[in-house]
Amino acid sequence: MKEHIKIGIIGLGKRGRMLLSIIARMHDVTIAAVCDLYEDRRIEAGKEVEKIAGNIPFSTDNYKDILAMEDIDAVIITASWSSHANIAIEAMKGGKYVGSEVGGAYSVEDCWELVKTYEQTGTPCMMLENCCYGREELMVLNMVRKGVFGEVVHCQGGYRHDLRAEVAFGKENRHYRLANYQNRNCDNYPTHALGPIAKILDINRGNRMISLVSVASKAAGLNEYILNKKGPDYYLSNYKFVQGDIVTTIIKCSHGQTITITLDTTLPRAYSRDFRVHGTKAMFMEENNSLFIDDMHNEFEFKWKEQWNNVENFRKEYEHPIWQDYKPEEDASHGGMDYLVLRAFFDSVKRQVQTPIDVYDMASWMCITPLSEQSIALGGQPVPVPDFTNGKWLNREPAPGGKYCLDRVAGE
Amino acid sequence: MKEHIKIGIIGLGKRGRMLLSIIARMHDVTIAAVCDLYEDRRIEAGKEVEKIAGNIPFSTDNYKDILAMEDIDAVIITASWSSHANIAIEAMKGGKYVGSEVGGAYSVEDCWELVKTYEQTGTPCMMLENCCYGREELMVLNMVRKGVFGEVVHCQGGYRHDLRAEVAFGKENRHYRLANYQNRNCDNYPTHALGPIAKILDINRGNRMISLVSVASKAAGLNEYILNKKGPDYYLSNYKFVQGDIVTTIIKCSHGQTITITLDTTLPRAYSRDFRVHGTKAMFMEENNSLFIDDMHNEFEFKWKEQWNNVENFRKEYEHPIWQDYKPEEDASHGGMDYLVLRAFFDSVKRQVQTPIDVYDMASWMCITPLSEQSIALGGQPVPVPDFTNGKWLNREPAPGGKYCLDRVAGE
Repeated sequence: MKEHIKIGIIGLGKRGRMLLSIIARMHDVTIAAVCDLYEDRRIEAGKEVEKIAGNIPFSTDNYKDILAMEDIDAVIITASWSSHANIAIEAMKGGKYVGSEVGGAYSVEDCWELVKTYEQTGTPCMMLENCCYGREELMVLNMVRKGVFGEVVHCQGGYRHDLRAEVAFGKENRHYRLANYQNRNCDNYPTHALGPIAKILDINRGNRMISLVSVASKAAGLNEYILNKKGPDYYLSNYKFVQGDIVTTIIKCSHGQTITITLDTTLPRAYSRDFRVHGTKAMFMEENNSLFIDDMHNEFEFKWKEQWNNVENFRKEYEHPIWQDYKPEEDASHGGMDYLVLRAFFDSVKRQVQTPIDVYDMASWMCITPLSEQSIALGGQPVPVPDFTNGKWLNREPAPGGKYCLDRVAGE
Repeated sequence: MKEHIKIGIIGLGKRGRMLLSIIARMHDVTIAAVCDLYEDRRIEAGKEVEKIAGNIPFSTDNYKDILAMEDIDAVIITASWSSHANIAIEAMKGGKYVGSEVGGAYSVEDCWELVKTYEQTGTPCMMLENCCYGREELMVLNMVRKGVFGEVVHCQGGYRHDLRAEVAFGKENRHYRLANYQNRNCDNYPTHALGPIAKILDINRGNRMISLVSVASKAAGLNEYILNKKGPDYYLSNYKFVQGDIVTTIIKCSHGQTITITLDTTLPRAYSRDFRVHGTKAMFMEENNSLFIDDMHNEFEFKWKEQWNNVENFRKEYEHPIWQDYKPEEDASHGGMDYLVLRAFFDSVKRQVQTPIDVYDMASWMCITPLSEQSIALGGQPVPVPDFTNGKWLNREPAPGGKYCLDRVAGE
């Protein structure tokens, strides 16, 4: 058990800075190094660490410098999507615990490399999927583990977030999303939806995803947006974006469950993860914040509106222990999920145990992106999902327990 | 123009009786004949017509007797799903306007037969898809036609209705759904969701559905339900139902729109058609009864709950003319949609014009069932949707106008 750990942060864009400012406030973690390709970002980040934590972190434009630092226990990767796998692989080889921000892969091969590197090095690699620690997601997980849902049959989720401004002005903001939307057509961001669902369905531990189909709508949202905001002469106004506005993916699991995942980021809408879990005894629906429980709510079949927001009625009994203990600040980043996922990661680093989201989870969640790209390119053809555990999912040794465990609920 | 018409009703189960009791109250329509295989149903139906309308209808167990009656203008088909196409085909040949209840087809060939028979006989054949006349569906259609949604990119709908009791006790209730769930795996009931969406997307009139993929979850809901209700010795308690609990289908259209349709009938839940329409300027969502309009609601991006139920704010401006004129009774069948779809049908019969839902609509909506069955059987393989118009969709002559027209909004 390490009482205190030192970390490096690689990638100091908007997301990196968000996590940096949370971590800098943690008394058992020192941000000993920061890295970004842009000098202005490095300078600002260094100043912030000094202001909050008092230390001046080592600063570099080459992440390999950080991996070479002997006293660094772990790295947080908040660089662009396309660099996650490479940096994670090198960090594992360097013996640094990896906490990687979310994002889809660019090839299935990259996912295999992550797995193989972990198996060679034994260095844990965690995708920092904050939504796995969302309050509703954890409460539903807790209820599923307690049997409230009966047999879970179908889950649904989406990344439904109007990113038109972020994507359209990617050049001005130095944001890598733009190039993705210009050139690729896939569910480029599946893990916020899939992560919590994969844990509910025991993916890689007695169950696995076996195939998927993916279909994309046309791309119309960005052009209309850019034309309205910038007029016809702006360089992107008539650009033929490759990324469809709505990408719907259906995943089939070995035990017959289905998962529907949607990317919905270039049309006007309010934010939602559109989370649903449906079993033989109950259903949770984020869109109206409701729980339908068989033999309790059937009388409301045709007047469900009266039960909207009824989730609060179940809070006391089923709040996940993590959230029983945690009262986030009013302005907590993403409602507190960011803090929790970081604590989950650092908890594993300090205890020197496997992380609650491991490299097999990371590989199987990230691979949905290139697989959806393939399926879309093939006109919706089903494509197989690899078994990154090479059969270990049939009979894994249990994940280490602890407060942040997502496979079992602590204390049970 | 016929001031008064005579009709026959074929099929006197629950649905047939529901429509019968609405029609019997119409002063310009006489129920001149009724048909069912079961004598008790015929007797009860005859009594009801006599009680409400005063006349005693001709009664038979053979629908051909009704088709042979010279003074019958139209037939309403409310028999089992598997008989719709055959009876409709014979009725068209007999020169009777066909109003057929909804249901999926059993083969694509049956859909072609409907179309060919119409083209040979010229007798209109309408699927009585009541949801096309639903209040919200029509208001959204009106808004789409007025440009409020911009370019519509994606639509979603479902038949989400807990039918466990109806299916499980199908033997006791003489209901044909049971045999379907015992033996088939498909979206067996796509048209409540698809009908209104097809009209919004101009399907068969300048657009068409070109392919679909369909994936089914395991079947777990019915067994658990039956076991709980009847114990382990009931004849169906351990029956291996073929029908998956959740069937998700993604349809791609010629102009790049996608449609997601879900069948969800054997798990606990509240009723919903899960209707969504998403365009470049707006989104409608049934699940929380909301409309998100770009440049109006963006400030609510992360607090959408405050806008739940905001559809009422748009009612005055965008209520469809059909619903401006119509105030259903408190206990109106399916909220009044049943009355409206029947009036739409009878209006066409009286005017002797094409029906607002025509045989091409009927064929293309019904064929989703066997196509989803094929796609599921092939592991989610995309399957092509036939062009039942044989190219006429590229340049159809406009549908006849009138109050009940679904292609244009009357008065514009």
